Amino acid sequence: MKPYALGIVGTGLIGGSMAIDLRRRGFAGSVLGVEADPVAAAAAEKLGIVDRVVPLEECVRESDIILVAVPVSAAIVVIGSVLDLFDKEGYTDKIVMDVCSTKEKLAQSVLYHPCRKQLVLTHPMAGTEYSGPWAAIPNLFDGRACILADTEESHPRAVAVAQAMYETLNMHPTYMRSSSHDVHTAYVSHLSHVLSFALALTVLDKEKDEKHIFDLASGGFSSTVRLAKSGANMWVPILLQNRDNVIQVLDTYRDKLKSFRQALEDYDEPKVRELIEDANRIKKIIR
Amino acid sequence: MKPYALGIVGTGLIGGSMAIDLRRRGFAGSVLGVEADPVAAAAAEKLGIVDRVVPLEECVRESDIILVAVPVSAAIVVIGSVLDLFDKEGYTDKIVMDVCSTKEKLAQSVLYHPCRKQLVLTHPMAGTEYSGPWAAIPNLFDGRACILADTEESHPRAVAVAQAMYETLNMHPTYMRSSSHDVHTAYVSHLSHVLSFALALTVLDKEKDEKHIFDLASGGFSSTVRLAKSGANMWVPILLQNRDNVIQVLDTYRDKLKSFRQALEDYDEPKVRELIEDANRIKKIIR
Repeated sequence: MKPYALGIVGTGLIGGSMAIDLRRRGFAGSVLGVEADPVAAAAAEKLGIVDRVVPLEECVRESDIILVAVPVSAAIVVIGSVLDLFDKEGYTDKIVMDVCSTKEKLAQSVLYHPCRKQLVLTHPMAGTEYSGPWAAIPNLFDGRACILADTEESHPRAVAVAQAMYETLNMHPTYMRSSSHDVHTAYVSHLSHVLSFALALTVLDKEKDEKHIFDLASGGFSSTVRLAKSGANMWVPILLQNRDNVIQVLDTYRDKLKSFRQALEDYDEPKVRELIEDANRIKKIIR
Repeated sequence: MKPYALGIVGTGLIGGSMAIDLRRRGFAGSVLGVEADPVAAAAAEKLGIVDRVVPLEECVRESDIILVAVPVSAAIVVIGSVLDLFDKEGYTDKIVMDVCSTKEKLAQSVLYHPCRKQLVLTHPMAGTEYSGPWAAIPNLFDGRACILADTEESHPRAVAVAQAMYETLNMHPTYMRSSSHDVHTAYVSHLSHVLSFALALTVLDKEKDEKHIFDLASGGFSSTVRLAKSGANMWVPILLQNRDNVIQVLDTYRDKLKSFRQALEDYDEPKVRELIEDANRIKKIIR
């Protein structure tokens, strides 16, 4: 099978890591990049993540598949522009995919676009707390889950190409509505990030003697606070776009924390034990 | 230098892992164990973590150093018994150490004991979310911090032996008062555990379809929820003994979470960005 001409809009951690594996595993032949930040653009070329950085129009013209891997607020604009180009230029065989962490607002924004069927909404559930082309690494996606959302709104051939692409990345596909996606990710990803940001703020606020944080931070603290290194450019739009779900989950979380606090306040040993043992059930679910 | 005869009261993750490294690195010759749970006792012998499991009196009689590595509530009782034996039998050269995650209540309980100087309060800051002799592993402590608390209450020779022991385990010693210890660990360890327990409870409560949690749980969620696997036998006494500090830290945390929620509620993009960028300062402190 002939490799695809791949276009990556956004040459950061996700776009860059996808380009690396899709090329070396033979799914992509050429890789063109679109990158607004000139430093990132130069790095993406120098690191060999893309062959060249080009304007969006050229990238769309020369690519079979366009992967949009920019923060979710920018993605809505870029996906709209790509679909408009498909429409204007009569590109009926090209496919565009997003990789966004929130889906519902994006899905709504393109619902009635004449080229909607050429868009596949995807969310490869992998990442690190780093960003930029210098953070792109091989094998980032192996063995992880990938959500394909609202596939009934996409052309079956476009879905098949997305499936083949994520199979190349060794990801497990999961199918759901974009609205369900946003509820689920609020629980298993967005909440964890907010908790970690708040933990960092708490410790930074109180521990004036920073030497001691560094000294005493055990593995437990490091793993809980790791996500607090995640960048604002990515996370501000995610949290705002998924605001209603995130707030609802935060309220549930606040109630759980309140139960814990109350049990400690009351020195209620059986209740503290019950809460911990209930929480321990997570062992059966998370490897 | 002649290796020490080591006694381990509690042959679990911490005691067992210490015994493994102290023996293979030549600090300890013989290792006797005291273990209340018969299954753990049999495993500790079978795994070669201890030479034999014996009653406490025999362990104290035959050992130069007694390491008490049981949950903090039990440790107060055991340390009292060991010091009483020192007193009663005239064991003036033996040393006992605890490895507890909370210190102030323990320190108070022995403050006026005639053999107080033979006790060194220590807290090796390392661990995993597993427990029992089957969880004991080599190299658990390498490169981590170890707190020695209230060393001015211990005999200089006893402190020197503790220092040599933790040097053998490749730990960095940090010195502080037991009251400071409990404040610091509330921030960098106990809070993380409570947050993780509450996260597990939140997700388990809401996500009825457990398959989806498993599918979608990315690295971020796994690392934040990892501590929720930690056992109640260890954590109930820690949280109750350090209750006042933990409650105070939880209240600060609740306020941080409230700021986040309010910024989302208000759709206040600059404020969300400010909170995240503030939290990002943790990068400078945590490797």
